[in-house]
Amino acid sequence: MPTIDPADLSLEQKAKILTGRDHTTSHPLDELGIPAIVLIDGPHGVRPPYSASDHLGINESQPATCFPPAVAVGSSWDPEVAAQVGEAVAREARSYGIDVVLGPGINIKRSPLCGRNFEYYSEDPLLSGALASSHVQAMQAAGAGASLKHFAVNNQETERIQVSADVDERTLREIYFPAFEQVVKEAAPATVMCSYNRINGVHASQNHWLLTDVLRDEWGYDGLVISDWGAVHDRVEALAAGMDLAMPMDWGAGESALIAAVRSGALEESVLDTSVRRILDLAGTATGAAAVAAGATESFDVDAHHALARQLAAECAVLLKNEDCVLPLAPEAALAVIGAFAMAPRFQGGGSSHINATRSDSAIDELRALAANPDKVQYASGFTLKGTDEAMIAEAVSVAREADVAVVFAGLAEADESEGYDRETIALPAAQVEVIRAVAAAAARTVVVLSNGGVVSLEGWHDEVDAILEGWLLGQAGGGALADLLFGVANPSGRLAETIPLRLEDNPSFLNFPGELGHVRYGEGVMVGYRYYSSVGIPVRYPFGHGLSYTTFTTSALEVAATGDDTADVSFTVTNTGSRPGKHVVQVYVATEAGPVRRPARELRAFTKVALEPGGSCRVTLALGRRAFAFYNVHEADWRVSAGAYTIQIGDSADDIVAEAVIELPGDAPKALPLTIESSLGDWFAHPVVGPELTARLSAAAPAPEGPEEAEESARLLRMAAPMPMSQFFLYAPLGDDDREHLLALAIATHSP
Amino acid sequence: MPTIDPADLSLEQKAKILTGRDHTTSHPLDELGIPAIVLIDGPHGVRPPYSASDHLGINESQPATCFPPAVAVGSSWDPEVAAQVGEAVAREARSYGIDVVLGPGINIKRSPLCGRNFEYYSEDPLLSGALASSHVQAMQAAGAGASLKHFAVNNQETERIQVSADVDERTLREIYFPAFEQVVKEAAPATVMCSYNRINGVHASQNHWLLTDVLRDEWGYDGLVISDWGAVHDRVEALAAGMDLAMPMDWGAGESALIAAVRSGALEESVLDTSVRRILDLAGTATGAAAVAAGATESFDVDAHHALARQLAAECAVLLKNEDCVLPLAPEAALAVIGAFAMAPRFQGGGSSHINATRSDSAIDELRALAANPDKVQYASGFTLKGTDEAMIAEAVSVAREADVAVVFAGLAEADESEGYDRETIALPAAQVEVIRAVAAAAARTVVVLSNGGVVSLEGWHDEVDAILEGWLLGQAGGGALADLLFGVANPSGRLAETIPLRLEDNPSFLNFPGELGHVRYGEGVMVGYRYYSSVGIPVRYPFGHGLSYTTFTTSALEVAATGDDTADVSFTVTNTGSRPGKHVVQVYVATEAGPVRRPARELRAFTKVALEPGGSCRVTLALGRRAFAFYNVHEADWRVSAGAYTIQIGDSADDIVAEAVIELPGDAPKALPLTIESSLGDWFAHPVVGPELTARLSAAAPAPEGPEEAEESARLLRMAAPMPMSQFFLYAPLGDDDREHLLALAIATHSP
Repeated sequence: MPTIDPADLSLEQKAKILTGRDHTTSHPLDELGIPAIVLIDGPHGVRPPYSASDHLGINESQPATCFPPAVAVGSSWDPEVAAQVGEAVAREARSYGIDVVLGPGINIKRSPLCGRNFEYYSEDPLLSGALASSHVQAMQAAGAGASLKHFAVNNQETERIQVSADVDERTLREIYFPAFEQVVKEAAPATVMCSYNRINGVHASQNHWLLTDVLRDEWGYDGLVISDWGAVHDRVEALAAGMDLAMPMDWGAGESALIAAVRSGALEESVLDTSVRRILDLAGTATGAAAVAAGATESFDVDAHHALARQLAAECAVLLKNEDCVLPLAPEAALAVIGAFAMAPRFQGGGSSHINATRSDSAIDELRALAANPDKVQYASGFTLKGTDEAMIAEAVSVAREADVAVVFAGLAEADESEGYDRETIALPAAQVEVIRAVAAAAARTVVVLSNGGVVSLEGWHDEVDAILEGWLLGQAGGGALADLLFGVANPSGRLAETIPLRLEDNPSFLNFPGELGHVRYGEGVMVGYRYYSSVGIPVRYPFGHGLSYTTFTTSALEVAATGDDTADVSFTVTNTGSRPGKHVVQVYVATEAGPVRRPARELRAFTKVALEPGGSCRVTLALGRRAFAFYNVHEADWRVSAGAYTIQIGDSADDIVAEAVIELPGDAPKALPLTIESSLGDWFAHPVVGPELTARLSAAAPAPEGPEEAEESARLLRMAAPMPMSQFFLYAPLGDDDREHLLALAIATHSP
Repeated sequence: MPTIDPADLSLEQKAKILTGRDHTTSHPLDELGIPAIVLIDGPHGVRPPYSASDHLGINESQPATCFPPAVAVGSSWDPEVAAQVGEAVAREARSYGIDVVLGPGINIKRSPLCGRNFEYYSEDPLLSGALASSHVQAMQAAGAGASLKHFAVNNQETERIQVSADVDERTLREIYFPAFEQVVKEAAPATVMCSYNRINGVHASQNHWLLTDVLRDEWGYDGLVISDWGAVHDRVEALAAGMDLAMPMDWGAGESALIAAVRSGALEESVLDTSVRRILDLAGTATGAAAVAAGATESFDVDAHHALARQLAAECAVLLKNEDCVLPLAPEAALAVIGAFAMAPRFQGGGSSHINATRSDSAIDELRALAANPDKVQYASGFTLKGTDEAMIAEAVSVAREADVAVVFAGLAEADESEGYDRETIALPAAQVEVIRAVAAAAARTVVVLSNGGVVSLEGWHDEVDAILEGWLLGQAGGGALADLLFGVANPSGRLAETIPLRLEDNPSFLNFPGELGHVRYGEGVMVGYRYYSSVGIPVRYPFGHGLSYTTFTTSALEVAATGDDTADVSFTVTNTGSRPGKHVVQVYVATEAGPVRRPARELRAFTKVALEPGGSCRVTLALGRRAFAFYNVHEADWRVSAGAYTIQIGDSADDIVAEAVIELPGDAPKALPLTIESSLGDWFAHPVVGPELTARLSAAAPAPEGPEEAEESARLLRMAAPMPMSQFFLYAPLGDDDREHLLALAIATHSP
């Protein structure tokens, strides 16, 4: 594309390219040589429609590899896994002439009920941000632009267009923004997609504070902001807020509105220029449409990508329970494989991310392929998506009774979770619970393998079974990956990226999800996920960060060394004490009670995944930056580190701290606020100049307390009075008019010029 | 006082009388014959200072009867008890020439930590409102004006001047306002006192929405609004908001500001006239100062009031536990009375309500007075307010071992709870727990009597003792009342007005109390107290409404009859099935899942207390009005009754439902909102005119689903699409431009003119 300046475009041309041409492309301006930008759904695979106007069959698209969705990648705790997904998706995108892949989605899993949780990584912002950053960097390095979504606070599907997420700013800054901030700063995504919802009453698409003040001015983002499809309600307001490209087409409505607004003087044309400049920057790199037109796209290696999808999926599944090492299965074991999901795998969620997979592995086939004797792997459905009946259960029990181990493949149906609506329960379907219990009662040993995008409850059957492998949604090669894990060809290394609670009611958002009458109150504030459970002491079924391996690891020799006033290095040794090679996820939490805000019991501040041979060990050093200790101070509109003790905790999960060390930080120098008559009595007493004078005048007016009882009462009264503003204390203090005037004058005199 | 019109006053005179003269009186205007209004602290007794300028010794005042504070009256569940307190306080007020008694305080007990909970009635607004209404009516009928306080949402002491209570409107309307609304409408209190805090950022004293839109325009209040002492920050803004009288004196600052504002045109003089009119109305009834000057006040009967205080206190204590009927004590029983509170009773809280009691009963004296043989009532302190030691414990154990029953008087010290600061724990002091456990291990039977203004935890010793009598703070005759209850001279009839949780952490406000950096988030919304525990299924130690008696009651023959579309009568029979006369508190809850908002599991909607002889029974009929079924709809800014099933539950507590019946209500006719392009697809389909046309055009464009699977997928897609605004659905719908235009025109055509 030739170098073009926004000034080279007419007002009409500017207005035109600020809105989509159709469902998948921006407006080209052929007369100026500006190509269309091709933007196609992701994130864990691409879904190019057969034609740009085919927007009906949202589940029909050209074939692509369905890699593990974010719910699985989140559980890998491995940025390298995220990178490999990103890179492979980029290759497929290029093969279809796609310039921008719409993803990754990095919203925080506030409630397990969110219908789109399978598209998100975690309940923790650091884990989400690190994985997404890696995904975006790899994807963009491989030639496809990313679209970081959904910015911001889009944590539910219910009323997603109208609902206002009512959230205080500290919570936004500490929980819902950091992953976006990290990806923007580290990976410079080609586009950021604004979300549908309102934030404290203002639609994200029309939110100047969000899209300009925070995203651009504070975080330095200079890419293109696009709308979620249909998220713009007022095109003029959206543009003024910093929302550059409205998608998809809107039959000319936005274009006309922009032209009219400029002509009426309601909108400066320079505002259009700013957004046009960003579109031109991206269009300058957009080669997809031309490549397709020229037949110059390169195809991707379907088999290699399927194999990659299998390898990556094995990194993601989480071994929750493994009594008496029932797993891995012996190759020669007689197996009863039960459950419809073993035959027809569930591996992705519904909605805009739904891939037309190039193929899909069924677990039963893959288990038979790995078994020493495939004939010893028997199958019974046990249930269908519609339920179960006596005959199905009887068959399952009969097969289970004959086997050494019964492996039940349970989970949620595709219709249970999707973009567009939320779940109402975390229960596993009752029919499946019934089958699991019946099988567990009959079988010598029982293993449950789960396929589900959102958390399901394990209650009612957890204690009846010997092992549980939580597979989440593993993509099209999930069946093979599960077989690899069950037989020990691969060693489980996933860790929970979200808490599995005992009851849905225990979730901190329970009473405030999904809100009502257009508002959802984020009443739990920063206490999301494990931050809540660990702060309030609510028992959970499995904590954030939990996951077993076929080998064992120890952490030792923890050392914490300050590297500055608000930074530290954390070093420790990890040893594989078992008999198999394996990977261990190191989790570094920071715990503090330093005020003036209430801190979660602990927060994940660093992590890494290390691979070790049996008996092997390695020294790990992780750096904790300022943000590992800081909180967002809404008064000062900035991050602040408080003076105090910070406990660095190494955890095998958020509930299982295996080593800890305390570091004292001096904290940021307190900002001295000038004393006024509305300052508290406590602040007045603490002031180096005014305090002593106040004490002297009070002492002169009132006799000193006599004896310990009077002193105690005096201390109690002071405790009562300390938070009073001086204006109120003057009402009760034994001070004359001259005292008041003198003290106020003294306070004003100490203000810095 | 002569009849005076605000127009008769100069601007200077108006400005003067809108601010207090000193700590306890408004400005008189002697030249016009306008007297000072004398406003003195209450609520459960009066505290006239020895001189109006004596504002130093906040615990020193002229003697008055300390009646049971609100925490106790709340537990009586008896409006007649509240009325008798109100009437007696009014008599004492008149004897001191007091025109207005500052009380009652009716803030909701959001957290057990609030330092001033002893001055409030309950965690439930209906119970609070009914008791306060009765108190105010009786007090005003007896000649003293009330000051309903603290309006509003003043649920903590921490940072009480600066903190902003950030609360959504439904929560304000359903939890924090109803008690005020009820008292204003039923009892027309002479004054309403605005609170210190901010509400959603605006100080109550300067909150026009609160003081004018809601209080006056909606509820019809036409009395005087006064400020809490020192709550006004901007006198002009406060007056404009509807805050009539600023208290106390402010050395002329407010007066000058008002005059300047009128002169500059910033404030209409008519705004002053409105408030002056209200002051003149009240001043017209203010005879206190004149009566004192003339020596014309009547003294009150100190002995009779003390006796009344004892009788009322006995109605308030709550018998929490009584294993094997260890209570009542036999008159001839050998007793070990243990605990410093038996000797030096704890019977009131600290701060502005602190009474200089005319006398006080100690429990040990009163127990000996009732015992058959006073010598068999032994005493050991066991602990002091400073703690315990081996010798004290040994003495207590030794005394306990000799007795038939040990009675331990435990509780909180006066310094533990007060206006001005909040508690940080609900634990009973560790020394007392130690003594209780030691005594319980040694004694044949152990009874614990508690004296505390805020909830204390029973954990660590609850299971070790046989009986627990929760006395709260019972006023100056509490010692006698406790003796009456322990010996069965009186039969306990109190019921918990607030939940006793297992852990402080279980409280719904735990993570959001007392807030931080000037804001406290009411994250639990309407789910306060038992509404939360019962909705989320959190076990508690003793639920709201719990309380035992020395007799037993049954509830039978429940009948519910609709008396209209949104009202019902509830009738049932209560029978005393035990062997003693007693009083039973009937609690009527309503439970519903009718949307569109999330309802608490149940809400108290009616109650009464009935006295029955052994074997006696009575038929009770209680009317449920519209508000018993309604929720506050923030969209429509009004109370709405949803169509649906409502379960009427009779409970012996919020957790113990003994009878229930379901009633179906038709609900309010839905307000038809006109369809727009931003209305949801669901609303479009549901529209009687436009819906069928939309369906027809969609059917014409897309083939009908073939077979059940396609139909199911089609239903799933519709579920996903139903909440979409039509503007977005148009992006995906197989409709042409003409379809869109036709449907929009049709929608507009259906709007009412």
